[in-house]
Parts: sequence; structure tokens; C-alpha cells
Amino acid sequence: MSLQEFDIIRRYFKRPPTDESIVRGVGDDCALLAVPAGHQLALSMDTLVAGRHFPENAPPAQIAQRAFCTCLSDLAAMGAQPRWLTLGLTLPAADSEWLAAFSQGLWGLIDHYDCHLVGGDTTQGPLTITLQVHGFVNAGAALVRHGAQVGDSVFVTGTLGDGAAALGVLADQVSLSEADKDYLLRRYYRPEPQIAAGQRLVGYASAAIDISDGLVADLQHIADASGVDIAIDIEKIPLSGACRRAQPEQCLALALTGGDDYQLAFTLPQEHRPQLTQWVQDKMLHAVEIGRVSACSTDRATGPDPKVRCYQGEREYILGQQQGYQHFVTA
Amino acid sequence: MSLQEFDIIRRYFKRPPTDESIVRGVGDDCALLAVPAGHQLALSMDTLVAGRHFPENAPPAQIAQRAFCTCLSDLAAMGAQPRWLTLGLTLPAADSEWLAAFSQGLWGLIDHYDCHLVGGDTTQGPLTITLQVHGFVNAGAALVRHGAQVGDSVFVTGTLGDGAAALGVLADQVSLSEADKDYLLRRYYRPEPQIAAGQRLVGYASAAIDISDGLVADLQHIADASGVDIAIDIEKIPLSGACRRAQPEQCLALALTGGDDYQLAFTLPQEHRPQLTQWVQDKMLHAVEIGRVSACSTDRATGPDPKVRCYQGEREYILGQQQGYQHFVTA
Repeated sequence: MSLQEFDIIRRYFKRPPTDESIVRGVGDDCALLAVPAGHQLALSMDTLVAGRHFPENAPPAQIAQRAFCTCLSDLAAMGAQPRWLTLGLTLPAADSEWLAAFSQGLWGLIDHYDCHLVGGDTTQGPLTITLQVHGFVNAGAALVRHGAQVGDSVFVTGTLGDGAAALGVLADQVSLSEADKDYLLRRYYRPEPQIAAGQRLVGYASAAIDISDGLVADLQHIADASGVDIAIDIEKIPLSGACRRAQPEQCLALALTGGDDYQLAFTLPQEHRPQLTQWVQDKMLHAVEIGRVSACSTDRATGPDPKVRCYQGEREYILGQQQGYQHFVTA
Repeated sequence: MSLQEFDIIRRYFKRPPTDESIVRGVGDDCALLAVPAGHQLALSMDTLVAGRHFPENAPPAQIAQRAFCTCLSDLAAMGAQPRWLTLGLTLPAADSEWLAAFSQGLWGLIDHYDCHLVGGDTTQGPLTITLQVHGFVNAGAALVRHGAQVGDSVFVTGTLGDGAAALGVLADQVSLSEADKDYLLRRYYRPEPQIAAGQRLVGYASAAIDISDGLVADLQHIADASGVDIAIDIEKIPLSGACRRAQPEQCLALALTGGDDYQLAFTLPQEHRPQLTQWVQDKMLHAVEIGRVSACSTDRATGPDPKVRCYQGEREYILGQQQGYQHFVTA
């Protein structure tokens, strides 16, 4: 069947606005939006390319969920409350079955996260999805990368390595129980953006980031922005049973460098440790301590040289060359 | 040469924020932004795909300019002041020469329009550019599509058909002087978003839209949203000399249906005509009257049926089937 751009928008991506922040939603030249007084706007854009960020023939609902969840994860890392979404959808053809499944997957999560689709663009071309999420934070309260202090503890909000282990399942390279496969694929297609955790940590965590490129690579961003060293105790890294069974030899490497986890890593001043312990006991936050922030060494010639180091007991654990997901690997 | 994503951002797309609305720019999980009190946010996203929205081998600076200008045009149509830009850039390879030229073209216009690049994403894949522009309008003052009233006059801010005529130049299908070719190609690659005109019309125009899909198709959006008919006098449509010379037979058809003009079409209540005339005389606004808003006919079975009609004198001028740019033309 043949669908025009306006039909696509009307049929799959337009609903009456239901939030007072939306003055005009889909259907004018621009969306027209109001940020509540005393709040700042946090926004983040993510592009997912077929064959690179998801398999070409992946189920459309799962593509939508993965795209949205990975993008929301950036709001989580700032402690922001999601509110608006824009969608740039480039499609080889206007396939109504694909569009129905994709939009259904997206709306389910849009509702779940109390978000609103306010605009976007639909074009013909190689399958590519660009999402921009917009959230609110109280002015001055956002979690940032540059606040880590010497002596802070380092935490993560959940198991690492699952997203990377799922790639083995997608490539049909591992022999696993159906339950383990389902778990890993769900972690890949439907990562849980740590929205609630991020908001809880506002006013407590000194720095935060979401783990998309790999724990070590992402902690390096905190180290660089804060001018500190970070030491990780690799024996404390939380690993799922499914990840261990999928990659008995490689699970720790995946957890340290694999990317696609979308948990938060954050640093916490010692004074807030009692509060965190209480939250963890009350199951209001899941967090595992994995390391410590220390003073950054200085190179005489080049100045401060922030480093993330991994330790197994007293012994430094040296990572291979590939320390995180790299988007451009060609020469 | 090989460039990683972070190198690309640092080298080509990162500058220190220089506007007080930018709390955090490029380099954290999200951009963190403040909308000034009493203002609303207008935002619009556009995706441009190589080979579809611009030639594959187009000069990178011109691709950047076209992408940015077409997107700014949506802010112009709302009467908004541009402020922030996000960029989703999907590239086949990290080609430093291409990136240098593209980013240079973009920064030139970013500065010209007092805009700021606050975030985005860089990925590997088929050349695709997604831009989202964000602007401010005084709360309640934005130009919208649904305000046209019976008796209003219809205006456009400049010549139509040039963007479509440029396609003939790009395809090497017309014989023209170099000056005419240069003029048309400039109108294609560097359309002038009517930012100043849009802002001037706030509080005066009853409805506005930017002409991206073709005059008739875009006025139809105003007609539909406002529940009115619109009559265009085709002899009043402003045409450039270059467009007339490029397409002596087709120039009017291009002006009515060709798209890619990025002028504004707007409706004006008669009470504001003296002010408009004054602005035009003082060269503070360029605008040509091309038609009139009238009551919409009603179909007994289906209700209101808003129509845009073209007239040559008293006689109705019937357009061919293709009334505007359609993004999905395949079955």
C-alpha cells in the first residue's frame, strides 16, 4: 500500500496533546512548548542506524523500544523527568505493517514514562531513527559529570555486560537456555532507563553518567570532566547469571568494556552513604559499590592525566586495547 | 585518516557556550538549557537524506547550509527567535576534509542567526542529517496555522519556484547564463529563512506557514487548520527572472507546486493592511498580496471541505495532479 508522509503522521504518530506543557503538538510548523517555572530543560539526541545499532530485520516494536530507552537513559543520567519526544524516522518504504508495530512499541513506552511525542520528521531513505528526548530538572539540580571528588565512592545501579552478551545471542554464537536468551535479548531491546534512580540521586550523587559505551570508557568521562582518578574493584562488578553462562571467559571483559548496559554509574560523597544504604535496604534504589575516586596523577609535561584503573585485590588488571564502543572504526 | 566520535565532536562541533540560556552545552549526557521567563519554546526537526534531499556529492558546506536554513524556516513560520541547534550526523566514514567543510558551513550560519549548537549524535551509516532547531517566542504570541479568517488577505514574502527551478540546473537540464544558474543554486542551497519577517508579523498575521512542499499544498494546511477556503490570483505570484528564463513554460507550475521555496505565506486581517503597507514601503518587510480567504464550502455528507483554488482573472486555473512535494511516492 502507498502512504504519504501526512497519512503516516496522522495514522501512527499523532495524538491530541494531553499535557499542559504542550501548547501546540504535532501539526504546525513547530511544536510550541512551555517549560515550568523554576525548571531547566535537559535534552539529548540519539541516532540508530539499521545494521549498525540494531539488526536490519529486528522486530519493529523492539527497535522502537531500544531507540527510546537508550535515549531516555541520558535523561536518567542527568536526574531529569522525561516529558517530550521528537522522532526523525527515515524509512525505505511506507510499510503499514512495520509502522503499526513500530508506533505501537513506541506508544507503549511513551505512556509508561509519561512522555509526549510533540514533533519530528518522516522521510524516505535507509532505515534510520533519530530521537530527541526532553526532560525537566529543577534549576541547578541536574546530575553532571564534572562533580566527582577525591574520596567519593563509585556505584553502579545494576548488572553490566548483559547488552554486550546479547550480541552473541543475536549472532547465534552462544548455546544458552531459552530463559537466558530471553533475559539477554530483553536487556538489549528493552534496557531499563534508570529514570527513578537518577531523580533519587539528585542532591546526593556528585557525578553521574549512563553506561552506553562501556563502564571503563564512561567512567573515564567522569574522570576527565572532574579531574580525578577512579579505581574499580573488578570483583565487585555485578554480573547476571545469564551473562556468566553466555560468556564464561569473557563476561568480566564485557562488563568493563562492552557497552549497551544503560545502567547509571555515579559517585557519592561519604556523607551520603547512610542515606544510600537506607534506600538500598528499603529497595528504593538498586546500587552496588564498585570503586573509589582518588587524586589524579599529573604528568610533568602534559599536566593532569585522569585515569580509570581496574584492580583485582591489590593487583592492577590490565584491559585489552578495546576499552569501549567506538562509532567510527574504519580508516 | 581515522577519527573517533569524540574526536569528531571535539574537533568540529564543540565550542564553549556563549549564551546564558546554555547551562551545559556539548559534553555531558544531556544539554541543560534555560528558557527565559515569559517565553515558550518552538522546536522543529528536519531530516535530509543524501540522494533524496540533496545530491550525494554536493559540496558539504552547502549541504550544511541547506539543512540548517530549511529547518530555521519552520521557526520563521512561528515568529520565533532561533536559539539552540542539535545535530544528528550519520556519515559513511569519518572524512576529515568533508567534516571541516561541513562544520565550517554550519558555523557560519549558526553565528549569522545567533544560534548555538548544544548537542547531537554522530554515527556511521548512509549520509543523513537530522537537525532540530529550538527558538523562543513570547508566551501566546506564536504564529500558527489555524487563525485565518474570512476576508483576510493572503501574502507571500518573496519569489516562488526558484528552489524547484534549481533542480533543473542541478540535473543539467536547462541552458542558462552563469548568473541565473548561480542565483537559482544559491536559492536552493542557501534559502533565506524569513526569521525577521516572521517576528515582525507576530501580533499582525492571523496565520502563517513556510512554503516547503509548494504554495498550494502549504496554503491547504492553513485552509484545513482554519476551516476556510483560499483563492489565489496566479497573475500576482512573484516570479524571479531566472526562474522565468529557466522554465518559460513551467515557471508558474513550479511556483504553485514546486516546493523548496522557504518563503512565508501568511494571512492578514484587513485592519493591519496599513501597517503592512508601511513596512513594505520602508523596506522593513517584503510581501506581495496573492489572494484572499473566503468561507469554506460544506459537503452535505462529509462536512466542511476547505479548498485552495487558483484563478486567472475570473477563470479557475486547474492544477495538475501533483500539488506538492510528496515524501513517499512508492507503492
